[in-house]
Amino acid sequence: MESTKELEAFYKDLFALIRIPSISSDKSRKDDMDRCAQLWRDILLNAGADKAEVMPTGGNPVVFAEKRVDNAARTVLVYGHYDVMPPDPVELWQTDPFEPTIKDGRLWARGADDDKGQSFIQLKAFQQLVESGELRHNVKFILEGEEEIGSPSLESFCREHCDLLRCDIILVSDTSMLDKDLPSLTTGLRGLAYWQIEVTGPNRDLHSGHFGGAVANPINELCKLIAGMTDNGRITIPGFYDDVVDLSPREREMIAQIPFDLGKYKANIGIDEVHGEPGYSTIERNSCRPSFDVCGIWGGYTGEGAKTVLPSKAYAKVSCRLVPNQDYEKISKMFCDYVKSVTPDYVKIEVTPLHGGEGYLFPITHPAYPAAEAAFKKAFGKEPLAVRRGGSIPIISTFEKVLGVKTILMGFGLESNAIHSPNENMQLEMFEKGIEAVKEFHKQYDLIG
Amino acid sequence: MESTKELEAFYKDLFALIRIPSISSDKSRKDDMDRCAQLWRDILLNAGADKAEVMPTGGNPVVFAEKRVDNAARTVLVYGHYDVMPPDPVELWQTDPFEPTIKDGRLWARGADDDKGQSFIQLKAFQQLVESGELRHNVKFILEGEEEIGSPSLESFCREHCDLLRCDIILVSDTSMLDKDLPSLTTGLRGLAYWQIEVTGPNRDLHSGHFGGAVANPINELCKLIAGMTDNGRITIPGFYDDVVDLSPREREMIAQIPFDLGKYKANIGIDEVHGEPGYSTIERNSCRPSFDVCGIWGGYTGEGAKTVLPSKAYAKVSCRLVPNQDYEKISKMFCDYVKSVTPDYVKIEVTPLHGGEGYLFPITHPAYPAAEAAFKKAFGKEPLAVRRGGSIPIISTFEKVLGVKTILMGFGLESNAIHSPNENMQLEMFEKGIEAVKEFHKQYDLIG
Repeated sequence: MESTKELEAFYKDLFALIRIPSISSDKSRKDDMDRCAQLWRDILLNAGADKAEVMPTGGNPVVFAEKRVDNAARTVLVYGHYDVMPPDPVELWQTDPFEPTIKDGRLWARGADDDKGQSFIQLKAFQQLVESGELRHNVKFILEGEEEIGSPSLESFCREHCDLLRCDIILVSDTSMLDKDLPSLTTGLRGLAYWQIEVTGPNRDLHSGHFGGAVANPINELCKLIAGMTDNGRITIPGFYDDVVDLSPREREMIAQIPFDLGKYKANIGIDEVHGEPGYSTIERNSCRPSFDVCGIWGGYTGEGAKTVLPSKAYAKVSCRLVPNQDYEKISKMFCDYVKSVTPDYVKIEVTPLHGGEGYLFPITHPAYPAAEAAFKKAFGKEPLAVRRGGSIPIISTFEKVLGVKTILMGFGLESNAIHSPNENMQLEMFEKGIEAVKEFHKQYDLIG
Repeated sequence: MESTKELEAFYKDLFALIRIPSISSDKSRKDDMDRCAQLWRDILLNAGADKAEVMPTGGNPVVFAEKRVDNAARTVLVYGHYDVMPPDPVELWQTDPFEPTIKDGRLWARGADDDKGQSFIQLKAFQQLVESGELRHNVKFILEGEEEIGSPSLESFCREHCDLLRCDIILVSDTSMLDKDLPSLTTGLRGLAYWQIEVTGPNRDLHSGHFGGAVANPINELCKLIAGMTDNGRITIPGFYDDVVDLSPREREMIAQIPFDLGKYKANIGIDEVHGEPGYSTIERNSCRPSFDVCGIWGGYTGEGAKTVLPSKAYAKVSCRLVPNQDYEKISKMFCDYVKSVTPDYVKIEVTPLHGGEGYLFPITHPAYPAAEAAFKKAFGKEPLAVRRGGSIPIISTFEKVLGVKTILMGFGLESNAIHSPNENMQLEMFEKGIEAVKEFHKQYDLIG
């Protein structure tokens, strides 16, 4: 596949999808969202689905498609999303973000990777298997249009359409590999809990000369509260680690095998030293252990110079990354109870939970794991590393909770793909190898006893 | 003095001063500052000064005037300021802030109290003594035009004109009494030290999922730093209390005599409980003991909702009120050294001193104190209470340092005067009693052995 003509024919469907600016965070794009969903329906029918439909939700529609091969066979459900992030800042793009451009062996466009490109890999693998007659099990597709805004409609959609979505395994291509030559499967994600804290002292800003020393300062108190929640990299809220499952020696061994250059890591983000929970490596800390970060803080006078004020209010946005088996609602309640228990009588403190989701773990002992492993080995010539990641994709644990089904995260992105940033791109080689890997997974999956 | 005509004749000079919007923080008001200084010169000459002149400084000019009565007699220097705060928010004023209005027994205008009104009290007392031939000692006036912006030019003016300003005592009317029926003399002020802290973690905002737990968060670290500086109302920076002079039993007795209603105090500012250094009363805490307040804090994401970010930077504006005998430069160095000593290797912390000044103490054993006491007793019918205040007027300690002279703070303001706020005002009764008190002070001062 060398000529431009051949390339354009091969990527035709992806190019058409990219040309629709389906930006879910932009409410004025409602028509584009609908157009993009309809296009996916047509593409899926054309690729070999028996049926495909655009289904309404409280927000942007969901595209559902199905290919039934054998009622006695297993069913693979493919999840992806057709919405994209805004292209801002547009002036930093070297090509039109919504006009797919092939250059230097890469496809450049918003959604080239996340997630139009990666969903296209799943589509092509499916289409080729249908065309070659090699598909032995049933396949379903679900594509949502709200992933980039937190999938607000998907959980209730899943609950309403449990039967429709019934499956044995879920396949998602929306993550990345460690590197082009370091194939990896994401076997874990962290959960998340996020709160806003509001500390109120006096009913108005006071003169710090006239009141300072006699009236509690809400910023001082907020700092004490936050400082008291951690100690040398450990979270000190009572009970916080109760449900944390320790890493097994085998898991730690596997993590230790992941190539990692601490010097480069520190230089890249400009720090002299890393800092975290004693007894754990940097990779363990940022992917397998809980964390506690203040994401934002504000209060009092923040302008130029020195204004002496004892402020009335102080605020912080605080979040914890959680690990699998930690229930974010339990943690959230624990957090609120803790704050209540340490609030002194001289200030008022309110905590508002803003967001949350469970972590996720795909055990490498799962019967489908060897199929994924074999698929990556065939496409990339190397056994993939099993890697847990520190970010959160709450919908994956929702699938498990609502549908009772595990998800395999077969992501083909690379760090250089600049998702969510200007000049998003994806290597053509990764499309080819990704399609090969997904096809091989389908074949291997049939061989599981 | 009942008729409007009589009132207007009596307050003529003050009305003329108020009508010039001499707002020192507004650079476009330079002409008004000059006009106001020139008007003061003319008023002082007219009131009986032998000479009066407008003298240049690096900023707004200083007005100096002198009445020499007897070369062998003592000299009283009166300090005041002709600049005012901006009238903002203007829409909350019920009268034109720069058009003096007499209503309900009060004069309403910006500067009615602070400090055109109170300086006018000093002027009138001087004028009446000159006219009645009762002035037995020499009097000097110095009026500056930068008090509301921290008197940046006054220290060097004092150093350059030490001879001109030579005197035995300084009189300032720029503070307030406890209440209309509770005459009081301010015998102490707190000092101030003010810093900005900047904590830097990674060189850019990071994804809290990918890095959280492995990279120190600058807001978490800032909170720890600030929380570590106090413990249950005490400042824990090593050496901080070394130069603090304990209150004597006699001083504490006098403070205990100041009428104070804790219930009203709490209700007024809307708090359930006060909070401060153990072993001290609220009045002691907010006037005679050091304090530590974060005046402002900011960093990370402060918009709507939940953005998960591990920010690059966090900032705070932090201040200490100091007590007499604490050297603010020593404290400032101690603070910076302390921060340096506790900065971990995984973040960078910079401290910038922004502002500072010494506290002030006027001992009631000073030979001039009985003169002030007698003056208040004559005007208000009651012995005044000696009261230390929690605010800071750095220029008072500068006078002591540069000129070697103590200042008597004979303030006639009331809390209801709303200085620095909309609807600033001063009771006509306080003008009359103030003038009486100042005249009596001059007379009593001559009687000191």
